[in-house]
This record gives sequence, structure tokens and C-alpha cells, in this order.
Amino acid sequence: MNSIREDHHEVRLVRHPDGGLRESDLEVVGAPMPVMRPGCVLVRTTHLSIDAAVRLRLDPVSPPGYLPAFAPGDVLAGLAVGVVVESDAAGFAPGDVVQHAQGYRTFAVVDPSDAALGGAGSLTLLDPALAPPEVHLGLLGGTGLTAWAGLHAVAAIRPDDTVWVSAAAGAVGSVAAQLARLHGCRVIGSAGGPEKAAHLVDRLGLAAGVDRRGDLAAAMAAAAPDGIDVYFDNVGGDHLRVALDLMRPFGRIALCGAIDGYDDGAAATPDNLFLATSKNLTLRGFRAGAFADRFDEARAELAALWRSGDLELELAVHHGLDAAPRAIVDLLAGRNTGKCVVTLDA
Amino acid sequence: MNSIREDHHEVRLVRHPDGGLRESDLEVVGAPMPVMRPGCVLVRTTHLSIDAAVRLRLDPVSPPGYLPAFAPGDVLAGLAVGVVVESDAAGFAPGDVVQHAQGYRTFAVVDPSDAALGGAGSLTLLDPALAPPEVHLGLLGGTGLTAWAGLHAVAAIRPDDTVWVSAAAGAVGSVAAQLARLHGCRVIGSAGGPEKAAHLVDRLGLAAGVDRRGDLAAAMAAAAPDGIDVYFDNVGGDHLRVALDLMRPFGRIALCGAIDGYDDGAAATPDNLFLATSKNLTLRGFRAGAFADRFDEARAELAALWRSGDLELELAVHHGLDAAPRAIVDLLAGRNTGKCVVTLDA
Repeated sequence: MNSIREDHHEVRLVRHPDGGLRESDLEVVGAPMPVMRPGCVLVRTTHLSIDAAVRLRLDPVSPPGYLPAFAPGDVLAGLAVGVVVESDAAGFAPGDVVQHAQGYRTFAVVDPSDAALGGAGSLTLLDPALAPPEVHLGLLGGTGLTAWAGLHAVAAIRPDDTVWVSAAAGAVGSVAAQLARLHGCRVIGSAGGPEKAAHLVDRLGLAAGVDRRGDLAAAMAAAAPDGIDVYFDNVGGDHLRVALDLMRPFGRIALCGAIDGYDDGAAATPDNLFLATSKNLTLRGFRAGAFADRFDEARAELAALWRSGDLELELAVHHGLDAAPRAIVDLLAGRNTGKCVVTLDA
Repeated sequence: MNSIREDHHEVRLVRHPDGGLRESDLEVVGAPMPVMRPGCVLVRTTHLSIDAAVRLRLDPVSPPGYLPAFAPGDVLAGLAVGVVVESDAAGFAPGDVVQHAQGYRTFAVVDPSDAALGGAGSLTLLDPALAPPEVHLGLLGGTGLTAWAGLHAVAAIRPDDTVWVSAAAGAVGSVAAQLARLHGCRVIGSAGGPEKAAHLVDRLGLAAGVDRRGDLAAAMAAAAPDGIDVYFDNVGGDHLRVALDLMRPFGRIALCGAIDGYDDGAAATPDNLFLATSKNLTLRGFRAGAFADRFDEARAELAALWRSGDLELELAVHHGLDAAPRAIVDLLAGRNTGKCVVTLDA
């Protein structure tokens, strides 16, 4: 085995998961160094963002409109931060810290003109003085932008709203819950287990924390006796059913994710969607990239809140690319709090 | 039996339906003449609007946010046109033609300050010279206003949109389909049976008519090979699932009704709601009353289109209050084309 093969590693799909993702469905292997191409940039990845949505591309077919599915043997892709090693692209020089969408590999050759991941994954120069890489990936990257877009561009939260955020101990959820609280909303968070539920109140300052593993409908009704105006949905299925029941007239639901169904192919579906008609509700699905024209505004607000200490970025950090398969599996199983990042620093 | 009891009749709920509504769940009975009250108006009903939504109030509990359920023995309520017999309210005089929400009875005592049916059911003076009662109830009443609001206020149709209207041979659907066509959209309608499907093209001028009783997904995919931008949903269930599959990115769905589930308690639910997220779709439930501030604008447009002959109001007319139970059952079973009205003229 030559030195180049030892230096470059990739996370590949071994087989499409049969139901729940197992670590053995993925493998971390040595591979030839990626070959530089004209107009491109060679990046050494230092931080990889682990996002639940990668699961959507592991089945034979991904949901229509979403990024294409991976085939067995394909290298996974995801948001990452790295350092430019070699550049043939204007505006990028060796040593620059950049964000790109070719994570899950030690080295990546990135074409700056390729706008993957709906705008959030374009090759972007980062300011390392502004914030560390984890914050760029979390608050100022897809995670924070998704939370911001769901609250402001999709649900149009107002200070007097009662807002429910599900998976509120997760990456997007914990940012969304805090942002809504800082906007003046009364925020109820839900998460798996009593520790996480307590954490939402004690650490994130939410008005209430609900353990989704109990009687979710009863617990939510108790936490929101007057109903909710906005539901930020990261879970789908039963959570969405409970939300439809609780929504006040003219309520808004931001459909951000449906992790409940990622491993099963389809989430349990709410049987009370007719409430949308009787209560004049809006359900709006979104991916952050649809609001790329507002990313500057969003990043400025998120960065200011982070620098002031008002907004906390919770991190779950794993070390080394070998830890990536386990990190994905744990994330999908709910064994994770905050933004999940794998560091690849040598 | 005295003469007054013979003069006044009411449609009452006998028992909550066990699944599908049967005529025997309702009864038409003679009853004492309603007693005038101060500030009110006594109206002799001449035209009763039969709307599928009345079914939502026949179960023991109606959907949250909707009008309350009827109990056995209650008189049904619905939009109606009538003539003022006696008035103790300013602005209303004997002989005036009015619309109100106390249908399903020969005589009604109506309080002008009571805004039932979300704004559309308030006691309203009609101009009989402008249009006949059926047109006031259909195009210029809840039916037309619902179609207009769903297209313009909810789905925000644009001339280059491809629009699918389900139950397009029905009251709201046939108006919505024509309005979208007149706005410049390419309109596909679906309805039950080949005759209705052909009617949508031949009579309403739609681009395509689809028989929902066949393979709906295949027929819709053939009729809309490039997908659809807007779905005006009167059916719910499988129709909504097919629509989610066909929606183009950033498509809009107006959730107007879900007749599929009215008789079953809950419509079959789409298992592909996650497509809303991956395709940035908006699903917006609505009742026309939410847009009462735009009713004047809507009525002016609808009246102009009707007078010019561009917009056709299809009618299914039944005669006599005794025909009302059968009319509701037929409407829910899909044995109806156009706006269903019962005439009560003596």
C-alpha cells in the first residue's frame, strides 16, 4: 500500500440499508488521492458535518426533488470545512479555510461553479477569525440557516407566538428553539428522554421540555394548554399529528424534516390532515437553499447572537473519519445532543 | 295538526350516521312556526344550498375549528336564499331577498348580528336584478367565493401554472377549474366516471379530464407529463398523495375539502408528505370565511365573468324540502354535477 492510499480515506456506501441504518452498511476505506482538475480547488477536510438528511440518499431512490441517491460503492457527500491545499480557481489560495459539500473524504476536489445542496453547499470562503469551523458548519452553515429560514422565512414567527420545536435537542432543533425564544416566543421543545427534556429547559431556557417517549399528545396538551401557533417539525409522523390537533386557527407548520420516517422509508402519516382546512393552517415544506437570497441577513443575525453569548451552539464532536459511520447511526437513533461534527485534523 | 305545523317544515338529524350517510339518518318533519325575536328577521326560504361540508357536522364531534356538530333532533343549517316576511331589523323589509345560514327549514328567524359560517353566512341583502338566487348561492355565495379564495388568496395562481382541480364536476370544483382556465392556466380536472371526465373538457373547456375511478396516478401523470404547480384539493386521501408525487418544486396545494373522508371519519392519508420538504411545497388549508375582506373583489370578478357568459354555473336542482336528504346523500356519493340547490318555492 503506497503512502497516498494511506493518506486519503473515504466513507462509502456498502449496501442500501434494510430498514434501520447499521454501521456495516458503510465502510471507511483508503483510496487513491483525488485528481486535481482545471478550475478546481483541492481541499483537505478538517471538519465534517453529520446531518440526518444524508439518510435520505442511502435508499435505492431518494425522495423526488431531493439530491440523488447513492449507489453501493459511492462516496457519501455532506457539508464540510477544510483547508485549501492547491487551487486553480480565482479567489481561493492554499491555506484558505473553506466550506464545501464534498464531505466524508479526507481530500476533495471541488469545482467552485458547482452549487450542490441547493445553494448551501457551494464552495465558500470562511473567515476563521469570525468563528471556529464548528460554528461555521453549525450556526452559520446549513444547520443555523435551516433553523433561521424555517422560523422567519417559512413560519414567519411573531413574538407573541407559542412555538413547538421537535427534536429540540438536535442540531437544527436546538438552534431553532433558541432563536424563537430570543425572538420573544413562548417555546416548547420536545426530545427523546427525560434528561434531554430537562436539558431543554435548564440549558436552552425553553418554557417547557417534553419527553417524546411518553404520551406525547398528553404532555404537549399540558405544556400548551392554549394550543400552539407554530410547529417547527423535525420529526413528522405522530409528532405532526399531535401538532395538527394542537394548532390554533391560522397556525403555521414548517416541515423541516421527518426523521421518524428516514429509516422506515415513510413516516407514519397523520390521519387528521383535514384539520388544516377546518383551522386554516399552512404546512410548508422547505429546504434552506430555497432562501439563499436571505443567507447574508441570516448569518449576520446568527453570528451576532453567537458572539454575544445569547445563542448557544451545542456540539457532539467525534474524532477521525473512522467515527463517521457510528456518528450517523447514533444521530438517527436519537443518541445525540446538538450539532454533530466529525473532526479530521491530522 | 294545525295549519301552522303544516306550513313549516325542517330537516332534522335522526341519528349520527354509522359510516356512510343514509337518507334515514335524516327526517323532514312539520314543526311549530319559528317565533320572531326582537331585532331579527323572519325569512321564508326559497333556495337551499346543499354542500358536502354539512357532513362534517353530522358525526358526534365535528373537526376542531369547524362549526359544532349537530345532535340528534337538531335542525340542520346551511346557506340559503329567502324572502323577508317580517322584519324588526334596520335595513331589511318584507319582500327583500336575502341570504342566510339557517337553511334546511321553511321559515327561519335570523339575527343579522350573528355571523355564522365564518362570515359567508351573515344575513345579506341580495340584488335579485343582479342574478337569480341560484347564482347568488353558487357563484356569488360560498361556492364561488371558496373557489376564488382557494385559487387567488391561497394558491396564488399565475397564468403559466399547470393546475389540477379534483372533484372538478362538483360545485366548488367546476367554478375553480373554469376560473383557473380563464386566468390563463392549463387546467386538468378529475371527476368520477368517463362521462364526467369528458364533460370537463367538452363543457368546461379544460385541457384534460381524468376519470378518478381508473388508475388515478397513471392518468394524472399522462395528463400532466411535466408535473403540476397548483393542486386545488376537494378530495384528500389518494388524490392528495398523487398530487404530492406530481408537484413541481415550490408548488402550492389549496386544501379546500376532503370529501373522501367525510363519510369515514378520516380520509386515507398520504404516505408521501415528506415530498413537501424535499420539493419546497406549501399545503394551505382554508375556509372562504378567512378571506371575507376580499369578498367584494371576488364577487365583482365572479359576477362579471358570469354576466359575460365566460363562466358557466352548472346546477343540479332538486324540488321541495323533502328532496334535501336524498340530495345530500347523492352529493356525497358523487352522483351530482355542478352546484346542488333545493328549491322551496311554494
